[in-house]
This record gives sequence, structure tokens and C-alpha cells, in this order.
Amino acid sequence: MYNFNITLTKTPKEKPELNDRLPFGKYFTDHMFIMDYEEGKGWFDPRVETYAPLSLQPATSCLHYAQETFEGMKAYRTCDDKLQLFRPYDNFKRFNNSNARICIPELDVELCVQAVKTLVNIDKDWIPAYPGTSLYIRPFIIAVDEQIGVHPASKYIFMIILSPVGSYYPDGINPVKIYVEEKYSRTSPGGTGTAKVGGNYAASLLAQKEAVNKGCIQVLWLDGAEHKYVDEVGAMNVFFVIGDEVVTPSLNDAILPGITRHSAIEVLRSGGIKVTERLLSIEEVTNAAKTGELREMFGTGTAAVVSPVGKLLYRDKEITINNNLIGSITQKLYDELTGIQTGSRPDKFGWIFPL
Amino acid sequence: MYNFNITLTKTPKEKPELNDRLPFGKYFTDHMFIMDYEEGKGWFDPRVETYAPLSLQPATSCLHYAQETFEGMKAYRTCDDKLQLFRPYDNFKRFNNSNARICIPELDVELCVQAVKTLVNIDKDWIPAYPGTSLYIRPFIIAVDEQIGVHPASKYIFMIILSPVGSYYPDGINPVKIYVEEKYSRTSPGGTGTAKVGGNYAASLLAQKEAVNKGCIQVLWLDGAEHKYVDEVGAMNVFFVIGDEVVTPSLNDAILPGITRHSAIEVLRSGGIKVTERLLSIEEVTNAAKTGELREMFGTGTAAVVSPVGKLLYRDKEITINNNLIGSITQKLYDELTGIQTGSRPDKFGWIFPL
Repeated sequence: MYNFNITLTKTPKEKPELNDRLPFGKYFTDHMFIMDYEEGKGWFDPRVETYAPLSLQPATSCLHYAQETFEGMKAYRTCDDKLQLFRPYDNFKRFNNSNARICIPELDVELCVQAVKTLVNIDKDWIPAYPGTSLYIRPFIIAVDEQIGVHPASKYIFMIILSPVGSYYPDGINPVKIYVEEKYSRTSPGGTGTAKVGGNYAASLLAQKEAVNKGCIQVLWLDGAEHKYVDEVGAMNVFFVIGDEVVTPSLNDAILPGITRHSAIEVLRSGGIKVTERLLSIEEVTNAAKTGELREMFGTGTAAVVSPVGKLLYRDKEITINNNLIGSITQKLYDELTGIQTGSRPDKFGWIFPL
Repeated sequence: MYNFNITLTKTPKEKPELNDRLPFGKYFTDHMFIMDYEEGKGWFDPRVETYAPLSLQPATSCLHYAQETFEGMKAYRTCDDKLQLFRPYDNFKRFNNSNARICIPELDVELCVQAVKTLVNIDKDWIPAYPGTSLYIRPFIIAVDEQIGVHPASKYIFMIILSPVGSYYPDGINPVKIYVEEKYSRTSPGGTGTAKVGGNYAASLLAQKEAVNKGCIQVLWLDGAEHKYVDEVGAMNVFFVIGDEVVTPSLNDAILPGITRHSAIEVLRSGGIKVTERLLSIEEVTNAAKTGELREMFGTGTAAVVSPVGKLLYRDKEITINNNLIGSITQKLYDELTGIQTGSRPDKFGWIFPL
């Protein structure tokens, strides 16, 4: 089907210990996938090469105007030593949406998935086996015109790199504390919030840093127009168990449409739990906490899968949720989702792609 | 004062013809300034080297999360063959503000100005002499951690590169047509609008492309919260002559505080013209156009200095300003500002720094 030029490394690296303590995104495997784009020529020369530095002129456009997008997904080693991917097609469909938002040319989704399969198979010895571990897959595109005019580039590089990662919770799941951000914005109506573009992440760093200084792990972003409605958490979408219902902000033009978010909604609904996607104000959340109706809160994302939130810091007041313990809905969802991803539970949704 | 390690190139490039047709930001001089940063060590090893590619690992953080900032300024060759800079200290002060907004460590402004002087003097033969031409100076910083966790990097590279540029108006000043953007946003309250960060420019590309498809040269950005108030034009701040007054949006947390904007206000006021910085709705602008009170409109920025706007495209209707001709206030301002920059008019404001 797809013909990738494969050049295997002659000097494999020494692997770090592939256990659950591996830091996120620090070690990279022996190979990378790379493909070029030129205006008039399209995407060309898909290939696997030794993981090696890029040579970029100082005037390269992505270093100035951040015309760059990325995705994040994982490959898992199951308990019976099979290798599998979780919803890779959905990631690459979203990748194309991100690309369109900042004028990066479209990719062939099937080619991308085949590229992931090819690359991961070549570097499969890098996939850790400990519970909670995985191989993080990072596709990304950078604009590489050697000219500093502000306009969409005419040349791009698409790459996929792989990083073995440890468990998000090597010491067991602990609920996190989140800072409700009312000063800074991540994006705005008409902005790039639904896209995984580099600029969204740079824009989040200062708020994140100030939240960490206040003892929180991430921020809860409110809408950029009024700072009134809940958008998402730093690296996760966000869910609230209010009464007998699970509520999550409905997708708009500011919220990242998380693959894990979508999966969580499906899993919850298939378990008979009512999930409502709607506009949700921070006032409603804090009121529900006061009345005791806010029973659980959690985030969803590729890195942590499901992360219980035990405390909110809102206007210098700490709000504790479910006595800072993981709630039963959150725990069930975590068990089911990670079970499907790692092969210990059946994949009734058709999300798993064996390698 | 500052001790820069200077290594001159042994193979100078062949220069392009340094005339007023030079494209923007395409040719670069023989040398570049470069300085490194490491956490715990600070900025170190400031040096001038041959302009050459950087070697960056695929996991380098700026390629994923756009933690990158830049500045733009110019060196001019005067009619009596002197070389001079325009307000370089102001550019580097703003650079530090941009850096602070996305957690990039502060630079020593004096060191930066000395670096520009040193570098421009070494490559001074690249400064064109034709009217309207200049040497564009591009300082920029990129985050270079080789790790893809989302957090401020611990390593950075600061660089300055130089590009000889032609005239913005090689065929005489022509008023431009601008598209009033009501769908997309560049930034939002609490966002990064006041900073020259790469992400702001990536976020602008799609709106810019759609505006060009509609026959416009740039977009007029409205506020990100309501799309009601005028913020700025694509690469420029914006001014309106309404009645006998010049009005420009007051600086807020979304508008880039342009050095040329500030210079324009000073020049206009010193010429006895009333300039008001205030909140200005697009409705007020279009109403003033209807009643004939909108006499002139222009943008200000480093590239064009002053650019008359002859037409606005607003909700599919074309609004013509001053019969699509440059107005007298715009022309006087252009002559005065470019006169100061190129040495044909006295620098009564103290903006010129000889090389």
C-alpha cells in the first residue's frame, strides 16, 4: 500500500530502564518517521530514519511564527505481550483539523496510521511492559520556509517520534489540586482553541507556572471572552459529577475535542450513566460544591487517561471535592478505559488497532 | 563593556542586488549573533559567527510548544552614508515584556543593543542605499529543551539575524484595502496579544489568507471577546482621522504596543494635531465613514512605517476612505517619520542611535 523508505540505524542507543518511573517525553527511540512537503509537489519521500537532529536555518519560519501542530497518542503492550494502538485514526483526523486552522496542508490519514504502525513495529523493543507504562507517539509538523515574511509556508516537515513513558501514577492514583484561572486566557472565540497548535501551549505556560507556585498542578481555563464558563484543564478536558449526572462543557470553538474525552463519554453512557454536554459556569460548579451536589470531578487526556480532581483553588479559597478522594464513577471509568487500552478488558467500541 | 567572541566568515556570500526590489526577509547577511541560556547558569557565551543552520533534535521544545519570541527593527543608511538605528532600546524593552509573558528569561537590554551594533557594523556592506530600503534586524529566542513535557524550558538560544530589505512601496505609496475580521480572533483578554510571540502569528494566518482571497491585503482585528472594538491591523497598529482628531485604540492587554505607533503619536502631537487613545468600536468607524467624518485611516509598523488605508471591506460592503488616496495627515506623518529614520530630517525626539 504505502511504500516507506526504511533505513535502520547501525548504532542502536542504550535503552533507559523501561519501568514505571520513566519521565514523560525525555527518552526517544532509535528511529523516526519523516516526510517532506513542497508547494506544487505535495507530501513526498515518506521514510524511516535514525532519530537524529534536524538542520534548520535561523530564518526557518516555524522558529519565528510558530506555524506548527502536533498530536499525541500511545501504543500499549498488553499483559499477553501484544502491541496495540488506541484510536489512531481519530488522532490523525483531529491533526488535519489542527493543520487546516493554521494553513498547513492536509495529510493522508491512512498513510499516517501506517507510518505509526511501521515505526512502532521497528522500535517495538522500546515499549515498556510495566502497568501504567506505554510508548508515547508524537506526530508533528513544522513550517520550514527559509524566509521571515508572515504568510503560510510553502515547505513543511511531518515527523513522528516515539518516547517510552512511565506511569502517570507510579504511587497509585492521587487526586490533584487545580487552580481556577480568572486572569489569563488560553484562547478566545474565533481563536485556535480547538487545534493542537504550538502557540496554545506557549500561551499557557505563565498561568501554569503561577498555579504551580500556588500549590496546584494545573489550571482550569475559563472562557476567554468573559472568564465565566468552564472550558478545560491545562492538558485535559474536564468532567463534573453533579447529582446523578455527569456534566462536561459542550465542544465550542475554544475547547480541544479530546479523544479521551469522547471515549469517556461513550464508556460512561454505555454503563448507564447520564452524561450531559452543555455550557457550565464556574459559579454553578462552586455552588454545587457548597450544596454538596458536586460529588466528583475529573480530567481526561492522553497522558493521565483519567485524573481525579480533589481540590479547586478559587479566588484564594480551597474547595474540596469528595473529601479529596477518587470517586466511584471516576475509578470505574479509569479502570474501564485503561483496561481497554492495555487489553485486559474487551474492546466493545472498536477503538483498538493491533500492531 | 561587553565581550563578544567574534569569528568572521572565511567564505562571504555573494550579495543579491541591494536595490528597492529586494523581497522582505529572504536574504540574510554573512553573520549572526548568538547567545545561550541554561537554568542555573544564565545567559552565556555571546558571540558572532557565520550565518549557518542550527542543529535541533526533533524533540526540541520550540518545535512543539512554540515557546519563542521575536522583535523587528531596522538599520538605515542615510543620504550622507551614515548608518543608524531607530529606537533599539524600545524594541529590546518590549522584547523582555514578550519574554516574560511566556516564561522566557530576561535579557540585558544594553547587551542586546551592543550586540546589534556589533553585528550590523560587521555586515554593514549589506545595508542598501536606495530610498526606502533598509537592513531588517530580527532578534529572536527559541526554547531548546530536548524534552516534550509542557513546561517552561531550561535552555534557550537568543539570536540576531540581518536581512537587507527593499522598499515597501517601490512604485510609490498606494493605499491598501483591509478586511474587517468578525469571525476569527488573534487574541483575547488575558491572552498574549501584547507580546511578540510566534503563536500570535500562526493564529493569524488563516484569517489573512481568507482576506487575501477577498482582495484585501490584511485584516483589521476586532477584540477577541465580542468582535466589536478595533484592536489592530495584521502587522500594524491602526489610526483613524475622525473630524479634526486622530483616534487610535488605547493599549490594552490585547494590542501590541508598537514602537512606530508610539512614534507616530509623538510626531503628530508635536505637529499640533490632537491624538486620542481610546476604545473605538467598528460601528463608530463605519458610521463616521457614512457621515464623511472619517477623513483618513492608516496603519503603523516597522515594515511599512506608515501605510494609508484606502478601503475597508466590512460585511461584504466596500467602504472607501478619502477617495482611496493618501490623506494629508498620513503623508506628513510618513515624510516626517521616514525622514527621521533615514537622516534627512532632524531627530528632535532622541530616537536615532548612530552606528
